[in-house]
Amino acid sequence: MKTASYAAYAAKESLHPHTIERRSLQSTDVLIEIEYCGVCHTDLHFVNNDWGMTKYPVVPGHEIVGRIKQVGSEVGKFKVGDLAAIGCMVNSCGQCSSCESGNEQYCLNGFTATYNSPVSDPGGMTFGGYSQRIVADESFVLHVPEGLETPGTAPLLCAGITTYSPLLHWSVCQGMKVGIVGLGGLGHMGVKFSHALGAHTVMITTTPEKAEDAKKLGADETLLSTDSDQMSKQAGEFDFILNTIPVDHQVDPYLDLLKVDGTMCVVGAIEPLSQVNAAQLMFGRKQLAGSLIGGISQTQEMLNFCGENNIVSEVEVIRIDQIQEAFERLLKSDVKYRFVIDLKSI
Amino acid sequence: MKTASYAAYAAKESLHPHTIERRSLQSTDVLIEIEYCGVCHTDLHFVNNDWGMTKYPVVPGHEIVGRIKQVGSEVGKFKVGDLAAIGCMVNSCGQCSSCESGNEQYCLNGFTATYNSPVSDPGGMTFGGYSQRIVADESFVLHVPEGLETPGTAPLLCAGITTYSPLLHWSVCQGMKVGIVGLGGLGHMGVKFSHALGAHTVMITTTPEKAEDAKKLGADETLLSTDSDQMSKQAGEFDFILNTIPVDHQVDPYLDLLKVDGTMCVVGAIEPLSQVNAAQLMFGRKQLAGSLIGGISQTQEMLNFCGENNIVSEVEVIRIDQIQEAFERLLKSDVKYRFVIDLKSI
Repeated sequence: MKTASYAAYAAKESLHPHTIERRSLQSTDVLIEIEYCGVCHTDLHFVNNDWGMTKYPVVPGHEIVGRIKQVGSEVGKFKVGDLAAIGCMVNSCGQCSSCESGNEQYCLNGFTATYNSPVSDPGGMTFGGYSQRIVADESFVLHVPEGLETPGTAPLLCAGITTYSPLLHWSVCQGMKVGIVGLGGLGHMGVKFSHALGAHTVMITTTPEKAEDAKKLGADETLLSTDSDQMSKQAGEFDFILNTIPVDHQVDPYLDLLKVDGTMCVVGAIEPLSQVNAAQLMFGRKQLAGSLIGGISQTQEMLNFCGENNIVSEVEVIRIDQIQEAFERLLKSDVKYRFVIDLKSI
Repeated sequence: MKTASYAAYAAKESLHPHTIERRSLQSTDVLIEIEYCGVCHTDLHFVNNDWGMTKYPVVPGHEIVGRIKQVGSEVGKFKVGDLAAIGCMVNSCGQCSSCESGNEQYCLNGFTATYNSPVSDPGGMTFGGYSQRIVADESFVLHVPEGLETPGTAPLLCAGITTYSPLLHWSVCQGMKVGIVGLGGLGHMGVKFSHALGAHTVMITTTPEKAEDAKKLGADETLLSTDSDQMSKQAGEFDFILNTIPVDHQVDPYLDLLKVDGTMCVVGAIEPLSQVNAAQLMFGRKQLAGSLIGGISQTQEMLNFCGENNIVSEVEVIRIDQIQEAFERLLKSDVKYRFVIDLKSI
């Protein structure tokens, strides 16, 4: 099987494209013919080895949607022809307290990521969705509701669950005022979900031009974080803030927006925040939290919720030979709001 | 009425001691003859104007215990002779959502602090407990259970409620593993309360010599935060951590100790924390929170709990003319664990 993104890193690594074998179908495995795969910023980090943990060759892609082509002898959840999806995980220990409570993303023994994770069967590393096919155990494969626009479904598997999970964990619902900071791949899904959950949804951005888009996506209003008057006017009004800014930034102005006992959850910045004012937390018993994707059962719940509410990601579909250009545009945040690879283009 | 700590700041401010009048007894006021007043580090910050907000003359002291000497015509909660206490607040708006929910410490209009807060009746600023008497509305005065050792009761009004409130808010109970970071005025109360609530209580300190004291106070074990082996052995094991370190410090090593969905609550450091690793929060949906003293009804609940469980603060009783020396020793953390002024020494 040819790797799709291979051209992107082959030059970098002076490797020649070659065929990568995956594991053969086990009794509880399904084989998916991939139709679309979203392009997450994490993919670019791995291709460039930004985090120093990439094992080349790497096949990125963890926002995978396709049709079941084969099922193992003991598969019970799927049949050939089903629309199915794989997100960021393909396995976990299944025995720790996190796995037992359906939070495989916090597996105490470390979950097996969809790509660049070591596996014993067949050995080597996992390969992701920039590919024509993928084999995985059915317990980590999701059902995709028919009727949703398929390319826009792919990013639900990472950008979608990353924003849906904290909104549910902190019980976002009607009657609450919720802020979504940043309008990118994650933020635009946050706005859609918060709106669909019935909360008064405020898009918080540095860019006035994003107001119109935010409204179309479901935001009730836009708050310009660079306008200190607007910011102090809404101080102490937010029940929950989902912060999708992907880099280090001053969190204090956003903490100031929270009500007493309010929480701001960070899902974008995986790096150290260079300053957090503890007094901001103390004077209002506020909480700064983090959240990582979501468990398998919650990911299924999210896909069902999307089916019922006709929610998909806003995407720009590309051919596989456009991946390098897409990576370059991603670096400039020049995408509304997610690139999705059409795998028929391989 | 003479101010007690006046000598401490009079020289600094080139003021001459003088008589400060307080308000006369209103219908819902009580007059307390103060027996003991704890010395909180905040007092020193105000005396030295460390936070740039001190209005001189200042009379510090918000850990006040004494006997009711007079009651206003409409007072219902107290009678002359009752043992009573005042903590950090003497008033709040009473109408905002925080006040209505019993969280006067988060009053959206700002509570009236026991000292250095502006008041309209009789005008000027409030004066605290380094004094012989204090007048306050009965709704902000607490009942002190008889039978507790009185000097040790005074620090319950700030150090006590500051640690009790977050332990209750985050539902600390038997079956939980709780860390108390720092063994000072706050930390030693945290250890006592966590133990009394039935949690497996771990004193987390940089100082091995504190282990013996920690055990006496109720800690089940001591964890040396400077020992990376000990720290990694207990990584991911704590349900809740109460962090009483009063200055900026690296919080990441403590966040690493938390379980999935665990919370670390900061009650000491009122300043910016220079670095918080967001990835630490994300990989485990952890929370960094803050908490400030406690509401009036919860303060009463704490005093009752102390009465039932015979809990007081460990104190060193001083005369008022020793306050300057006490401040100097406080700066060096040379106190086990709270100075308390005997007001009969005025």
